[in-house]
Amino acid sequence: MQTIDNFYLNATHMLLEPGPVVLVTTAYQGKYNIMALSFLTMLEQNQPFLLALVMGPWDYSYSALQKTGECVISIPTVDMASTVVEIGNCSGSDIDKFKKFNLTPLPAKEIKAPLISECLANIECQVTDTSLVKKYGLFILQTVNVWTDPDRKERRMLHHKGDGTFVVDGETINLKDKMVKWPEYL
Amino acid sequence: MQTIDNFYLNATHMLLEPGPVVLVTTAYQGKYNIMALSFLTMLEQNQPFLLALVMGPWDYSYSALQKTGECVISIPTVDMASTVVEIGNCSGSDIDKFKKFNLTPLPAKEIKAPLISECLANIECQVTDTSLVKKYGLFILQTVNVWTDPDRKERRMLHHKGDGTFVVDGETINLKDKMVKWPEYL
Repeated sequence: MQTIDNFYLNATHMLLEPGPVVLVTTAYQGKYNIMALSFLTMLEQNQPFLLALVMGPWDYSYSALQKTGECVISIPTVDMASTVVEIGNCSGSDIDKFKKFNLTPLPAKEIKAPLISECLANIECQVTDTSLVKKYGLFILQTVNVWTDPDRKERRMLHHKGDGTFVVDGETINLKDKMVKWPEYL
Repeated sequence: MQTIDNFYLNATHMLLEPGPVVLVTTAYQGKYNIMALSFLTMLEQNQPFLLALVMGPWDYSYSALQKTGECVISIPTVDMASTVVEIGNCSGSDIDKFKKFNLTPLPAKEIKAPLISECLANIECQVTDTSLVKKYGLFILQTVNVWTDPDRKERRMLHHKGDGTFVVDGETINLKDKMVKWPEYL
C-alpha cells in the first residue's frame, strides 16, 4: 500500500466517481470497525476534495464516525465480493470484523481509522460538515490522504444493485478526445 | 417507455445505487435542457425515496433546477457513450441538446421536465431540500415517478472515471443468499 503524492489527490474522484461499493473503517474507543456502503458521492473534485456519505443511526459505525469525525474509505475488488456482503450483514457491536474476515488493518497517515491492506485503495477522510447528519445521515467529508496498491493485479470494482447482486467492472471505453470542455481532468 | 407501479418505486435505488453516469433533464422558460452528471447518490431507500445530486452554478441546468425544483434523471447505456460525453461538453445556453443529439423528449407524468425516450430508464424528481445548494451545489430530491423501457435490449450502464474514460457494466454476481440482515431488499 503506497501513499499517493498530494498532487494526485484527485485520484479520489477517479476511484469514487464510478460508484463502487466501498468499505468504511472507523476507530472508536480502541476498537476498529468496518461497514459496507454504497450511498456515497463526490461533491467537489478540486481541492479540497469533498465527498458526501450516508449512514443510518442503526449502523454501528454511525456513532463512531460522529464521535471521531474520521474514517477510511477502502475500495474492494471482485475477489472480495463475498467478504463485502458478509461485512454488510453483521454488526460491529458484537464482532471484530477485521478478525472475522481475515483483513489486515494498517495505520493511516493523518487519522486513527485503519486502512484495509487487502483493498485496492484507501482514502483517509475527515468529517467537515454535519449539518445534514440528523436529518438524512449525510456526512460531508474531506479527503486528507489517498493510498493505493500499485502491485495489485485484480482491479475490477463492484457496484451494488441494492439487492445482493453486484455488477462487476467490464471493459473501459476511452472518450478523452471528446472532453473538450474539461481539459484539466484529462 | 412504461411507468413503474408505485409499489416498485425502489427500482430507483436498483438503478442508481450502482453509480451510473446519468443525464439530467430540465424544463425552464419553455426550453428543455440535458446535462451529464455522476455526482449523485441514493439517500433513503424507503419511501419517500430520496437522492442527493450535485451541480455547479457554471452548469446551465443549475438555475433551471433551482427555479423549477424539478428534473428527470435518465439512465443511458453503453451504446450512448459518445452522446453522453458530448452532452457534457457543450452548454444548453447556446444549443438545443435534444435536437443536436437526436434525442426524443417524452412528457413526464408528475413534472414538466421531459423523459429521454432513448434511455433505459427515467426517474422523475422534485427538489425537497436546498439547504446545501449554496455551499456545495447539493440538491436533495424526491423520486415521484419511475419509467423503464422493458423492451430495450442493451441494458449495460456506464460509470465515468472522471477523465473521459468509462467503465461498462460487466458480469453480475448474485450474493442474495448472504443478505441475511436486509431481507426486505431481496
